[in-house]
Amino acid sequence: MSAPLRVTVWNEHRHERAFDHVAAIYPDGMHAEIARALAERSAGPIELRTATLDEPGQGLGGDILDRTDVLVWWGHRAHDEVPDELAARVQQRVLAGMGLVALHSSSRSKPFMRLMGTSCSYRWRESDDRALVWVVAPGHRIARGLPPVIDVPHDEMYGEPFGIPEPDELVFVSWFTGGEVFRSGCCFRRGAGRIFYFGAGHQEWPVYHQPEIRQVLANAVAWAAGEDDPGISPQAPLHAETGWFEQANQAE
Amino acid sequence: MSAPLRVTVWNEHRHERAFDHVAAIYPDGMHAEIARALAERSAGPIELRTATLDEPGQGLGGDILDRTDVLVWWGHRAHDEVPDELAARVQQRVLAGMGLVALHSSSRSKPFMRLMGTSCSYRWRESDDRALVWVVAPGHRIARGLPPVIDVPHDEMYGEPFGIPEPDELVFVSWFTGGEVFRSGCCFRRGAGRIFYFGAGHQEWPVYHQPEIRQVLANAVAWAAGEDDPGISPQAPLHAETGWFEQANQAE
Amino acid sequence: MSAPLRVTVWNEHRHERAFDHVAAIYPDGMHAEIARALAERSAGPIELRTATLDEPGQGLGGDILDRTDVLVWWGHRAHDEVPDELAARVQQRVLAGMGLVALHSSSRSKPFMRLMGTSCSYRWRESDDRALVWVVAPGHRIARGLPPVIDVPHDEMYGEPFGIPEPDELVFVSWFTGGEVFRSGCCFRRGAGRIFYFGAGHQEWPVYHQPEIRQVLANAVAWAAGEDDPGISPQAPLHAETGWFEQANQAE
Amino acid sequence: MSAPLRVTVWNEHRHERAFDHVAAIYPDGMHAEIARALAERSAGPIELRTATLDEPGQGLGGDILDRTDVLVWWGHRAHDEVPDELAARVQQRVLAGMGLVALHSSSRSKPFMRLMGTSCSYRWRESDDRALVWVVAPGHRIARGLPPVIDVPHDEMYGEPFGIPEPDELVFVSWFTGGEVFRSGCCFRRGAGRIFYFGAGHQEWPVYHQPEIRQVLANAVAWAAGEDDPGISPQAPLHAETGWFEQANQAE
Repeated sequence: MSAPLRVTVWNEHRHERAFDHVAAIYPDGMHAEIARALAERSAGPIELRTATLDEPGQGLGGDILDRTDVLVWWGHRAHDEVPDELAARVQQRVLAGMGLVALHSSSRSKPFMRLMGTSCSYRWRESDDRALVWVVAPGHRIARGLPPVIDVPHDEMYGEPFGIPEPDELVFVSWFTGGEVFRSGCCFRRGAGRIFYFGAGHQEWPVYHQPEIRQVLANAVAWAAGEDDPGISPQAPLHAETGWFEQANQAE
Repeated sequence: MSAPLRVTVWNEHRHERAFDHVAAIYPDGMHAEIARALAERSAGPIELRTATLDEPGQGLGGDILDRTDVLVWWGHRAHDEVPDELAARVQQRVLAGMGLVALHSSSRSKPFMRLMGTSCSYRWRESDDRALVWVVAPGHRIARGLPPVIDVPHDEMYGEPFGIPEPDELVFVSWFTGGEVFRSGCCFRRGAGRIFYFGAGHQEWPVYHQPEIRQVLANAVAWAAGEDDPGISPQAPLHAETGWFEQANQAE
Repeated sequence: MSAPLRVTVWNEHRHERAFDHVAAIYPDGMHAEIARALAERSAGPIELRTATLDEPGQGLGGDILDRTDVLVWWGHRAHDEVPDELAARVQQRVLAGMGLVALHSSSRSKPFMRLMGTSCSYRWRESDDRALVWVVAPGHRIARGLPPVIDVPHDEMYGEPFGIPEPDELVFVSWFTGGEVFRSGCCFRRGAGRIFYFGAGHQEWPVYHQPEIRQVLANAVAWAAGEDDPGISPQAPLHAETGWFEQANQAE
Repeated sequence: MSAPLRVTVWNEHRHERAFDHVAAIYPDGMHAEIARALAERSAGPIELRTATLDEPGQGLGGDILDRTDVLVWWGHRAHDEVPDELAARVQQRVLAGMGLVALHSSSRSKPFMRLMGTSCSYRWRESDDRALVWVVAPGHRIARGLPPVIDVPHDEMYGEPFGIPEPDELVFVSWFTGGEVFRSGCCFRRGAGRIFYFGAGHQEWPVYHQPEIRQVLANAVAWAAGEDDPGISPQAPLHAETGWFEQANQAE
């Protein structure tokens, strides 16, 4: 039997405390609701932890990252308050094999931007747009158990052009009432780690209460965990002595 | 000064002869209108030829393919009437360096399907959908001179999931009134050739009369020509003698 | 507990019957040895079957393909004797979700070439080259449990340029004594299926007896199975009625 | 007639001043020799400038980057002395459309690492390895005019695993006497810019004096310039008003 998957859900946790209408949707914070979704829908045993920006060490001090298999990240208005040092640690852990699921406006978070190397910019509009999230890769792990399209009654509009590297695998493309489209589900492999960006989830609408969206979250964590994968990747140049392969051969 | 680009526009040319309302839009056939668009907007010298299914040799007999740098293809209802042998010749020429621009329903044409190796299927609806064609790769050659989005008043809806290999470069994603999205501008490199699929252009609407769409056609031909690229690629296994590199070294 | 993985190992089975020195290495045929490797190293329960060219229906008649989760293919001198109809059936099953592991000279087999759409040609030399198979994607499922490089004392040389589409993931690159390199471990996703090409395994050397190579075979089958993936992908255009999403919404 | 391509060749310029045997090969610095190669082999008009680390502003002050179409970068022992602020400016210029050609050990330079987001680590050995640089994408602009393999009599060995994102296009793979392989020619598209990494060019051997290598440099600059491409890409989220597309429509 396999060890439980260790997942840490990180949230900025500012909107929920600043605005009553956000608190009404996420009274315990978005991290709590996301963690509930994962507990509810995880395909295997899972060990959940949450962390928020205003906790000591931004909630990610000590060896928490080292004991995290997949980190879920939700940030929006306070990207700049995340220390560069923490962003660098998240990046290193991803390259060393940790999964990262970056949600909604976390496209512009420091850890995600460091891993992409690009502007990660996009078109946007806060309104009452309806979003249709289409599955464009029906055979993908992250599409498991989903209908062909997820109908999100209201969400913030994020649209193209989205300033990312060409995704290694594109899973979702979203449609918005206002006329825009968005590559809203993007897989990236970096070092030994896997990164999934998912566009849905504005704080002002109950998007993470929706069953299909909760399924996406659980699927994304499972994919990012890549549980079968060994997760080794060199982090610094390796020196090779001359003649190593002749010697290797003699040893056999 | 460089030699003119040799472009052949192939069209099934059946709808225009069978239906008055199509003939009203394309009285000389869609191939003629597409060729006019290319003549009008090509960035460099261009030598245009058209060819249609009901001509001898399907219009592509003799050495026409060998003297074609970029082949534009429009087919819909008569895919099955294209001989397998012709589809194989088109495939071989693409692998040897010819560009191919496959338009609209040509996603299910024999040459394109052979080159993709996949189902190339999609969701569809003939209706009066408005289509918004978004540029998702603003720096791409095919996006040159285009606005961020092309507003096509009416077109047939083609939607996801689209059964293609992951495109090497994704240039356009379309939005439809009816709620769908579609990867409508897809680049593929195969052998020494370049392939561009472009989704717009139902025969029942004057899509190829629209200035921005004409610009896409000209850009796509220029990109598919890859004029700077040498266009060599082996078509059969090459045998290598033992010791070739020691000999090569001595010869210097 | 999950159902056993159903794997069919297909082999041309000609060299072993025609040449004593090949029969000495693979007395029961290469398929039998490959199947033994899979039985020995599969991470989960597995149900193995073998099939060869000279059996009725080329060993793949009836519903065998439909009851196969991963097909392993080894062909060399008799590619042309595989009926087109069978190659088409294999292609369709892959697009519908079956995994395919194409070994060595199977790069030029009909099913693999149909799925790639390219020449699949390469440089080659039958000699006594030593091959070093390097892992270039250490975090990949197919690299699990492997050393950084696999030292194959002798194998046929297959070298670049290799006429394939850009692989979706590149796992191995091989080095040969004679000076060549080769992208010898290539992943492709097509439709709902996964395809892995692996270059090692000339019939004249005991390559498939080597422990690390056997591990590659088992890993490749596991990856190609993509056991977590749902394996659905449309095979033909889907028609969509106008207004489907308004109706879907009302039904909720 | 098109404007000349504006190319800046940046070099750390430390080894040449610290070691006589390096100075003997590159008496004016490696940047001077690289610039000579570009002047000699550029396909079109070119305006060359060089810049080095110990010049004021690291040679890249004022608006030099803004007036550079392609930046060639060679750094090795002094990566850390490049200010973060300069690395960030290079990154931004690339995303806005400038080409970047990163040579040899510049894989670990700050600008390249910021753009990749990964470890960019590799295996290495300073020895007298012979390197064979194979063309794996014969149809690519960067392979123009090259033989199938470039024989470099001596170079530093850089080998796999190379900690980069999957290249958008792989052009060269190198073979080394000592048994290693390396993805030595890698194309990346990021924002509106193009990045080419090329592995050859240790300071202790006259690699950049070799004709084929000089051709690679000229080809790489031409490709990175992407002269046909418009080079626009948003750098920050764009706000979209509700109803923009209805209004756009009425305006027509």
